[in-house]
Order: sequence, then C-alpha cells, then structure tokens
Amino acid sequence: MKPGLLENPPAVVNVGLPWFCDGIRAARGAVVQVAWRPPALSSEIMAAFRRHAERIAAANQHAVSRIMAARPHLVGIGIARDLVPGMTPDTLLHAGPPIEWERMCGPMRGAVMGALLYEKRASDPGEAERLAASGAIRFAPCHEHSAVGPMAGIISPSMPVFVVEDREHGIRAYCTMNEGLGKVLRYGAYGPDVIERLQWMEAVLYPALAHALAALGPLDLRALIAQALHMGDEVHNRNRAATSLLYRALAPAVVQTSGMDTAAAVLRFIDRNDHFFLNLSMAACKAGLDAARGIMASSVVVVMARNGTEFGVQVSGTGDAWFTAPAPVPDALFFPGFSKADANPDIGDSAITETGGLGGFAIAAAPAIVQFVGGTAQDAAGYTCAMYEITAAEHRVYRIPGLDFRGTPVGIDVIKVARTGQQPFIDTGVAHREPGIGQVGAGVVRAPIEPFLAAAEALACALDLPPGKEQSCTPMTS
Amino acid sequence: MKPGLLENPPAVVNVGLPWFCDGIRAARGAVVQVAWRPPALSSEIMAAFRRHAERIAAANQHAVSRIMAARPHLVGIGIARDLVPGMTPDTLLHAGPPIEWERMCGPMRGAVMGALLYEKRASDPGEAERLAASGAIRFAPCHEHSAVGPMAGIISPSMPVFVVEDREHGIRAYCTMNEGLGKVLRYGAYGPDVIERLQWMEAVLYPALAHALAALGPLDLRALIAQALHMGDEVHNRNRAATSLLYRALAPAVVQTSGMDTAAAVLRFIDRNDHFFLNLSMAACKAGLDAARGIMASSVVVVMARNGTEFGVQVSGTGDAWFTAPAPVPDALFFPGFSKADANPDIGDSAITETGGLGGFAIAAAPAIVQFVGGTAQDAAGYTCAMYEITAAEHRVYRIPGLDFRGTPVGIDVIKVARTGQQPFIDTGVAHREPGIGQVGAGVVRAPIEPFLAAAEALACALDLPPGKEQSCTPMTS
Repeated sequence: MKPGLLENPPAVVNVGLPWFCDGIRAARGAVVQVAWRPPALSSEIMAAFRRHAERIAAANQHAVSRIMAARPHLVGIGIARDLVPGMTPDTLLHAGPPIEWERMCGPMRGAVMGALLYEKRASDPGEAERLAASGAIRFAPCHEHSAVGPMAGIISPSMPVFVVEDREHGIRAYCTMNEGLGKVLRYGAYGPDVIERLQWMEAVLYPALAHALAALGPLDLRALIAQALHMGDEVHNRNRAATSLLYRALAPAVVQTSGMDTAAAVLRFIDRNDHFFLNLSMAACKAGLDAARGIMASSVVVVMARNGTEFGVQVSGTGDAWFTAPAPVPDALFFPGFSKADANPDIGDSAITETGGLGGFAIAAAPAIVQFVGGTAQDAAGYTCAMYEITAAEHRVYRIPGLDFRGTPVGIDVIKVARTGQQPFIDTGVAHREPGIGQVGAGVVRAPIEPFLAAAEALACALDLPPGKEQSCTPMTS
Repeated sequence: MKPGLLENPPAVVNVGLPWFCDGIRAARGAVVQVAWRPPALSSEIMAAFRRHAERIAAANQHAVSRIMAARPHLVGIGIARDLVPGMTPDTLLHAGPPIEWERMCGPMRGAVMGALLYEKRASDPGEAERLAASGAIRFAPCHEHSAVGPMAGIISPSMPVFVVEDREHGIRAYCTMNEGLGKVLRYGAYGPDVIERLQWMEAVLYPALAHALAALGPLDLRALIAQALHMGDEVHNRNRAATSLLYRALAPAVVQTSGMDTAAAVLRFIDRNDHFFLNLSMAACKAGLDAARGIMASSVVVVMARNGTEFGVQVSGTGDAWFTAPAPVPDALFFPGFSKADANPDIGDSAITETGGLGGFAIAAAPAIVQFVGGTAQDAAGYTCAMYEITAAEHRVYRIPGLDFRGTPVGIDVIKVARTGQQPFIDTGVAHREPGIGQVGAGVVRAPIEPFLAAAEALACALDLPPGKEQSCTPMTS
C-alpha cells in the first residue's frame, strides 16, 4: 500500500461503471488469499494457442453467440421412454460423466435402486442392488441423451420429463420434475415415501401439467430466468423467484384444465418447493449449450457435470470427449447433525447452470447463498467478477442488478482457465455419502482445474491436425 | 483529492462491513452535487433539543421499537362502510393531509368523481362533479380513519377493503384492493371501464378473496415483505416478488373455495398486476406506524402523505397535527407521449412505506427502479445509505441483501432531518394533472423539508410544556 495513504481521511476514487468489480477485487486482494497459480500448460501448448489466436477467438465468438441467442421454451411434458433419444427399457440415465455401477458413489447407487423400485424392476432394495450390479441395466450420462438431472440425476423410462426447446436452433433438452427437498431420489433416498411421491408425480402432477402446458402454449424460460436474476435468484441454489414466476404462469391454466382438488394439490406441491424451477433452468442451459457443441477450434466449455465420483468437462472444439478428475467435496452449511465427514463429493448435472453463465457465475445476484457459508454480499459480487476472467462474453440477456445490470460471465474458456488458474465457481447441494439418506447441506465448490487443463491440451493438439482428425489426440484424463 | 493519489495504480482500502455505504458515499461525494444545506432551525430550538436529548432518545427508541415489533397480518377483507372507523354513507376518504374539494388536484377530483359514479350517487361525470362541490360529501384523510390509499387514495363506503392487523399491538389498518395499471381510479381516471372494473372487484374478486382468506387464516405480511426485499422489491414502486409470494399463498385456497372459472379469473387478475401487493405493504406499514403514535417527546415521523396539492407529515410527539408544504413534482420516466409538464405534483399515501423503512428507504434492494430515472445500482445503494443519517434505527426484520443484509433505515427523525438538511427519498408513481387521464410515469422524489422543520419546531415547543399542553404550540404550516 502506498505509504501515507491512511494518514488523511480516506479519499476514494470513483472508477466509473466497473466500480463494483474493481473495488471488490481490490478490496479482496487486500484481505483474501487469492487461489492463483501459474499456468500449468507447456510452453509448446501456449505457443499453439497464440499461433491460432484469431481462429480460436472467432470460434469462441461463434460459440457464445449461439449460447446467448438460444431461446429456450418449455413446450410440453411427456414420458422419458417416448421422448428421450436413445432411451431403452433397460436404460437408466445418470448425472455427470460416464460411470459404471462399481464406481458409483453412495447417493447415486441409492437413486439407482430407488429408480428400479419405482419402475417395479425390483421389489426390495436388495433385489434392486443385485439387478443394478448384474449388468442388465445400461447406465449412460443424461448429457449424452439431450437430458440433465440434478444430484444423482437418475432418469428412468417411466419418469415424466419436461420438454425444453431452444426455438432459435430447434434443439431440445429433457429433465424430470423436481421432487422437493429432504429425502428424495436425487439425493440417494429410496424409501417407500420417496417411491410414493414419484408415483404421485407420474399419476397426478404429470397429467395436470401436461393439460396446463397444452392450454398455455410455449413458455419463454429465457425471459423468466432473466427476471428471476432481478429477484435474487441465480437459478441453481436459489430458485424462489423463478419458481414463483413459473407458478403464476401455470396456476390459472392448471385451474382451468384440472378438477378443483387436483389443481389445489398440484399448486400446493409446487408452492412447497422453491426449487421446483431448478430442473427447468438446467434444461434451458443444456439446450442453449448444446447449440454450441462441435465448433472447431472453440475452447468454450459446453458441459460441466459431476457423477459424485468424478467431475467431467466437455468442450466445444473437442467433440464428445469427457475430461475428468476426482470430484471435490463442497464447502457447505450442513443440516443439524451432519458435517463435512458425511458429505459425498460433488454430484449432479446442475453445474450446467454455471456453464451457461448462471448459478455460481451469477451469484452476485443472490448474495443470500454466500451467507450460507459465512460470506458477504461483497464476496458474492467478487465471485461473479472473478468469473469474467475465464469467460468469453458477458450475457446479453441475463443481467445482474447489483453490478449495474452487467451481463453474467458466460462461455467458460479452458485456455483462460489454464492461463489464470482461476477455477470455475459452482453452487451446489450436498448429498450424504451413504445411499438412502438424502440431502445434508448446501454450499459452494470450485471445479477441479485438471479437466480444463486436459481439455486445453486436447484442443491444442486438434488445432494443428487436418479437419476430421481432431479426435485422434483427445485424451481421457481419468 | 490527495495530490499524487492517481500517480500509481489505484490502491483501494477495505473499510470493512459498512464498505458499501462508505465507498458509495465517498464516490458520490466526488461526482454528485450533494443537496445539503445548513440547519434551518433557530439556536433556541436546537438548544431545547440538546437539553432534552436523553428524553428524546428514549422516546424515539420506544417509538422505533414498536414500529419494528409490529407483526402485520392480513386477517380478512370486508366492505369499507362496515369496517373503517368513522365511515359514513357520505364519507369519501382520500390520500394525504386534509383537503377540501376546491383545493383538490385534477387526479384527486377525477377519482372522487369516479367513486361517486361507482357508488351510484351520480349518473354522469358532470353530476358527480356538482355533488362533490355541493358540500354534501364529507372528505377526510384515509390516515385519520386507520386507512391508507395509493395515489388519489379514494375509499368510498361500498369498496371492499383488506383488513391488516398488527398482532403485536392489536392495531388494524385498512386498504382497498389494487386495481391494476393504466387507466384506474387511483390515478384519476373515471371512464366506464374504470367503474366496471371496480364493480367486478366488488362482485367477483372480493368474495373469492374473502373465502380464500377465511380458509387460509392470517397471513404474515412482515415475513412476506422481508422475503420480497431479498427478491428485488422495495414494496413501493416494485412489488413483483411480493405479489408473486402472495399469489402463491392465495392460489390453492382460491381454487378450493371458488368455482373453476372464478378462480381462474381471480388468479389472472392478480397475475396481471405486479402492484397487487402495494396496498397491503402500505397497510402493513400503517398498522406498525400507528403503534408509534402519540409518544411524548418522540421526534419520529409516523406519517408522510400527499394529497397531490400538499405534502403532509405527522410526528409521534406532536399528536394529530399535520405539518404541510406544497407537494413537489417527481422526477420520472414518463410513458410515451407524456412529459414533466403533464405531471401532477406528488400524490398518495404510499410514502407510508418510506415512513416504515421501505420504498425509497430500501431502494438499495431494488436498483431496477433507479434505472427508470437514469441512475445506477450504486446510486440506489447511495440513496438508502443516506437515509441512515436521518433515521433512528436499522430495521431488525427488513434487510437488504446488497448491503450485506443490513437492516433498512427506519424511524425518520425530524431533528436529524433538520440538522442535516437531508430530505427523505421517496419512490412514486406519477398521475396526469388533469382528471380522467391516469398514470403517466413512475419515478422518485424528495420530500420537501419545510414540514419536517415545522414539526421539529412544534416538538421543541411541546418539550418545555407541562404534559397535556403540547397541542397548544403545534402550528399548521399550510
């Protein structure tokens, strides 16, 4: 610090519009240990990025333009087996990168068992476990089937799924309906109450919403999310405003298309779960990011997802390859009676929200979340501001009031991540590490850096190959 | 500015938790003309305040404790003539301090005419105008009848009114249901569409809400407002979150107690008006502030209200006296085709929200509003922060996320206003100055300082009088 600066009353300089970020960053610099480390990529790789800088920049511009141009709409709801591409009667979709039963974490195993009970493929948990381990079930990532699932993210053939369509590019994404809080399948619980709730959702909630959505017509999720960001949500760990706005949109249609008792029960179910919107915010991001897949030379991340064992990343310019590392354990506010020792490593496809410029990347819009883990509003603004360093654009539609309506940071660039060592910041729920228990807390986590470095390496390799040969140098890090 | 400070890269000092306010104030000091002027009270009066400083402080502590302890609940809905104290068949209640027909502004005259048409006391606008001017109608401030009304604030005997009860002190406050936007009675419109809407509200909306509220039981407005502040509302010019939360609370009960078509119509009506909650936020503040009336030696403001001609203030320690000055014209974003030349001076009881620590005093929670008039999020935080200088407390329940959940400034102290020259900051809607037209914009306004100075003078006089004689030196400034 400049000597003598504090001898007089503080003289603070108005640095104009980026004031919040600059001020916060400077203040944080003075008090917070910055988690920075030197670039971990070889000088050859960095030289390749410099050589292809213009090509990469153009590809990234194209990628983020498509992400931001996406106009995800909720267009309907149906049954997974009828809608989700590649779904077979023996398929169970799960969150995160590919994983087999043997390596699955506790809560994912619990959710698999619950799904097999729900599907009546097993009559008790022991039978479900044996079936899951038998090889008769085909496990596949949601993300490889145009779908996303929070936490364990299990989608089984009989489950109702929302249909979200990006009306700009015609791309669809699917997600289940959110079950609520506490002991629920996505957190690895599989007791009779969990299965009964899923059955009620299929028998009552699903047809009611199907009728209401048919009456309503497509519902603009982008507009709804943009509004929710002005109302204290980041639509990952906080969805109260988005759920409220969705509720207002749905309620009159539910009333007019369902009987009185059904309508009241359906509205009560949604009202009691401020996370009801989460799955839709995930599917909205998924649809938009799928529009940016497979752009040659683009270093923009199109998937961040965790299966509770590994954290996986997919990048636009490296095709369908997954880059993975062990999933970290989140910092969280734990429910009474639980601690970090109970916490499963990070799990769920919900980091698709951060990949799309929401969630932790938009946490300045939702400082209440940072309070969970002892942070301040200033910290929340700082977390968002840091993400501008590793992203390719500021979102044209999703904006943060407290940062003077600056667009959220969007389009994570693995080259920028590698250069700065700045790890993507993610909001998350925390599952108990044992199957059958459920949620034990909520908090924040940093993405491990290794998958981003590995993706950058693979991209650098692909840059110097003739078109069509890029896959030949795409490593799997796990 | 300290010479040499800008020679090096900016070194910003982290000044801890009050960082936002301090930083903002300092930055504003550098760029914004501060509207400060020296105290306008005589040295004798200031000496009286110093002499009684302890007594005043204790009285103000008592006053703000009661304001903050209030637990306003929506407990029901009924017809004004049956519920509002002192309402006669010939009474029309209006916003602001007392005023007769002759001095009423255009929009208030329009609303009076509309109310007489709605009451079937007249069959056309001309007849309504003659009746209003005839002396047969008794005009009285809402505030003198435990009620509040936005803009013209007209409450006529047949209008349904919400009943808000402070369950801590047992005090009730009444307000009409919000009609929606555009051409509406409260903005001075009185066309057939306005009257038809009021009739529908009485015939359909009122019984539906009456049944729903009876089924629901009391609804905690304090908890709802506290949540809305975390969702981008200040519950004066922005009520989207509060309306959404109220909607979620009401909808299942409306569905279960009304027929399908009525329920759908009622839900659509509320859904189409993001200001539906405004009247309830006003009544919640009114009930809490009425609990702080009549505390000897307290310099805390219990009413700020405007009738479109005058701005009026009531203070706890000066009883029922009104202190008034001409109402200012707001700075506003005008609807297309309108300008400040069309604007009526400030009007409405809605400044009760600022009096209760909400609205403009909580505008840091709702930076979108400041955008209306070209301001930034930083300006919004600055406006709230400045109000801490003229208030007696920080609210224990109403908190602002962007200021690290600091309590809103509450309990305007006329002595502090007089000392600092800092004028209360108020959000407001703008009515056309002619009757019959309606809303032309929305914006912000500063309370005129004169009523606060006059109230301070009256309080100083009362301080040195024996108990029971305070009224003898309470002037009316208008």
